[in-house]
Amino acid sequence: MAHARRHLLGIETLPREEIEAILDSAASMKEVLRRDIKKVPALRGKTVINCFFESSTRTRSSFEIAAKILSADAVNWSSSGSSVSKGETLIDTARNLEAMRPDILVIRHAASGAPHLVAQRVGCAVVNAGDGAHEHPSQALLDAFTLRERWGSLEGRTVAIVGDIRHSRVARSNVYCLQKLGAKVRLCGPPTMLPIGIEKLGCEVGSDLRAAVAGADAVMMLRIQQERISESLFPTTREYSRFYGLSRAKLDWLKEDALVLHPGPINRGVELEPEVADGSRSVILDQVENGVAVRMAILLRAAGMPAEASAA
Amino acid sequence: MAHARRHLLGIETLPREEIEAILDSAASMKEVLRRDIKKVPALRGKTVINCFFESSTRTRSSFEIAAKILSADAVNWSSSGSSVSKGETLIDTARNLEAMRPDILVIRHAASGAPHLVAQRVGCAVVNAGDGAHEHPSQALLDAFTLRERWGSLEGRTVAIVGDIRHSRVARSNVYCLQKLGAKVRLCGPPTMLPIGIEKLGCEVGSDLRAAVAGADAVMMLRIQQERISESLFPTTREYSRFYGLSRAKLDWLKEDALVLHPGPINRGVELEPEVADGSRSVILDQVENGVAVRMAILLRAAGMPAEASAA
Amino acid sequence: MAHARRHLLGIETLPREEIEAILDSAASMKEVLRRDIKKVPALRGKTVINCFFESSTRTRSSFEIAAKILSADAVNWSSSGSSVSKGETLIDTARNLEAMRPDILVIRHAASGAPHLVAQRVGCAVVNAGDGAHEHPSQALLDAFTLRERWGSLEGRTVAIVGDIRHSRVARSNVYCLQKLGAKVRLCGPPTMLPIGIEKLGCEVGSDLRAAVAGADAVMMLRIQQERISESLFPTTREYSRFYGLSRAKLDWLKEDALVLHPGPINRGVELEPEVADGSRSVILDQVENGVAVRMAILLRAAGMPAEASAA
Repeated sequence: MAHARRHLLGIETLPREEIEAILDSAASMKEVLRRDIKKVPALRGKTVINCFFESSTRTRSSFEIAAKILSADAVNWSSSGSSVSKGETLIDTARNLEAMRPDILVIRHAASGAPHLVAQRVGCAVVNAGDGAHEHPSQALLDAFTLRERWGSLEGRTVAIVGDIRHSRVARSNVYCLQKLGAKVRLCGPPTMLPIGIEKLGCEVGSDLRAAVAGADAVMMLRIQQERISESLFPTTREYSRFYGLSRAKLDWLKEDALVLHPGPINRGVELEPEVADGSRSVILDQVENGVAVRMAILLRAAGMPAEASAA
Repeated sequence: MAHARRHLLGIETLPREEIEAILDSAASMKEVLRRDIKKVPALRGKTVINCFFESSTRTRSSFEIAAKILSADAVNWSSSGSSVSKGETLIDTARNLEAMRPDILVIRHAASGAPHLVAQRVGCAVVNAGDGAHEHPSQALLDAFTLRERWGSLEGRTVAIVGDIRHSRVARSNVYCLQKLGAKVRLCGPPTMLPIGIEKLGCEVGSDLRAAVAGADAVMMLRIQQERISESLFPTTREYSRFYGLSRAKLDWLKEDALVLHPGPINRGVELEPEVADGSRSVILDQVENGVAVRMAILLRAAGMPAEASAA
Repeated sequence: MAHARRHLLGIETLPREEIEAILDSAASMKEVLRRDIKKVPALRGKTVINCFFESSTRTRSSFEIAAKILSADAVNWSSSGSSVSKGETLIDTARNLEAMRPDILVIRHAASGAPHLVAQRVGCAVVNAGDGAHEHPSQALLDAFTLRERWGSLEGRTVAIVGDIRHSRVARSNVYCLQKLGAKVRLCGPPTMLPIGIEKLGCEVGSDLRAAVAGADAVMMLRIQQERISESLFPTTREYSRFYGLSRAKLDWLKEDALVLHPGPINRGVELEPEVADGSRSVILDQVENGVAVRMAILLRAAGMPAEASAA
């Protein structure tokens, strides 16, 4: 009955059928999440270690709630006050955690490729919860889930991703995911925030917000990291906002039924004016709720559990 | 069977019957807490997020243990290392947490009114675990529970509250709670620590400890926050202790069977001499135990669960 | 059915039969830990508070996973952001935690004897998770379990412990444990890291690594704490490694089937060369896995649960 355990390291190498299987499973899980009694025994007796080398209470909480609804034992491990601060290497930490016999290690790390490195050295399933500027697969899957929920299918749709493309694992995972599901992707940001050679991924690339969002079915606004401003990738926050923020006035540039997404947390007044973040096109809070459902599906898959039986 | 979910934001607006219903429910919960197997299924499949913007492992642990005994999934969220430190607003944080579909948000925040603001914007139940210098309803309820347990009723009793009344949410919630339950309240502290207009709450107010405790049935000593000393609200800790600390010698000023309470953590030798804190009149550890029982009752009420069936 | 609750404060006063009973129980627990569904109801309705005054995510996680597999409610309490940072004494903290009616307090503290002090003042069981330079009984028990698993019995075996003996609670607990189980212990380290009078414990003591490991059945390498180097107990890390680190070249000094242990986290290149840490003689990851099993046994014993029935 139990399938093989499966890592989720990135979207780049994940076949379309697997993506769709995860989204289908997430739809069942969302139904569980909305029950009055949100608890299924699917992962009883399984241990999930949330292993965060970068702090993120939001993503960690989402995985933790997902694990608990599935009846797994969730253990939070963070690198502060840990063996890492005592000089332990990534692989040693991972192999030590593995030795405690978890079924799944959920890993966030500032270094691109860290979860892949770990996956090669441990026997349990590894889920990438964000690695450097590389991938953030659970975010891309919850974004795709949110769009599919509205549209039925992503086939033939156009999604504009706006902001600091160069440093964004969210953008990278979304490019792979959206394209595999049949959508066209446009990338838009200031030239300093566009990586060289990004066109090779098959996206339209530009620095003109108006052109990027014109006719798009959805606009995904990336979070601007304040430290990038100080790195002089952009003069000031106000300047960034003026050219790449989505204000109420600029909503006229969008199709009437275009959706607005943001991975959170929002810098209100920078990427998004409050009227846009809270407006009728925004699906930002759907993304958060869907995040729990998608992570339930990811944990089921990682533990080798059949999705169809897990909602019972 | 399930009742409506109910916030607990403060005591000021809580009717006496509701207070008494919580205390009755807490009495059943204390019986559960003292069982050899401390576990009832009342909140199975419910999620409680302990959302602490101010650190407090004590109150957080009390709510966490209460949730777990009731079989709820408890998730701890703290603002350090979180989206808050990345600039997110209170309302955005709360609405994001709500989107993960918890049943109850337990909130501690340094700003008075924060839980009320959140309660207006989310669909789940909100429990105030202390907001600024405003209210700390679970503390007042556990104090009332502790007194009622000893006395049967608070009707006609006199309680003296001693210390930094001005900055104390514990004092404020207790004034409301004790008076609603029929007790008379005396407030005592140095003039710099008494808020202007406090008499309007219907309490006797003064700065003479001996007069305040004379004939009182219980004396509630507030914790002195060391930073208030440096703010020059009082010259030195020793000076504070001499005038407003409860020493063994001053016990003669109290009625023979007067009870001594303290919300903890105690500054030994400042508010209380060790002989008093550990003496026969002290009910300080009862307060801590009762805190878990009262918080179980608060969580049941918040989730709309009937108390009578929850001990089974 | 339920036995009396029992503290685990140290190995020094623990009779050999008790040590062996814990190791026997741990063998059953290791079988549970390796199940596909790692969950037994033995401690359902029991609360374990992990009370760490010194940070250690590794030992804390091991106790937390152990508690959860046994179906206990595990609550993590740390002194940062707690009442301790607000000036509370150890005993007040412990008695406050006890008042929340946990069944077991697992305590780590920088002061030798802290768990003993607490155990005298609380009604629940106390487990020492490391106190200052005094004892670390769960570590010694997991080390003994690991050796017994390989050898069947420790009787007549010789174990060399190498490093900063003077500051090591791991060394101290192991000396007691290994000797009680019939092994001979050799202690080896630079003269500045050997406590005066250590010979009285009945061990061979010396500063020559080659002599210490010659003919030993196992070599336990202690972690070097970098701060000891700065305290000038040793000139440099490189110097330490040259004389007391176990390099591949020095493996020739060991018996062919000698085992290599380390309590972790490893300073690779200091105490151990990677080839040794990851080599065929190393049982370092067995130690970590066995740590969970041994802590399950310790928690069962602390809660007064019969081990034989707990694997069901």
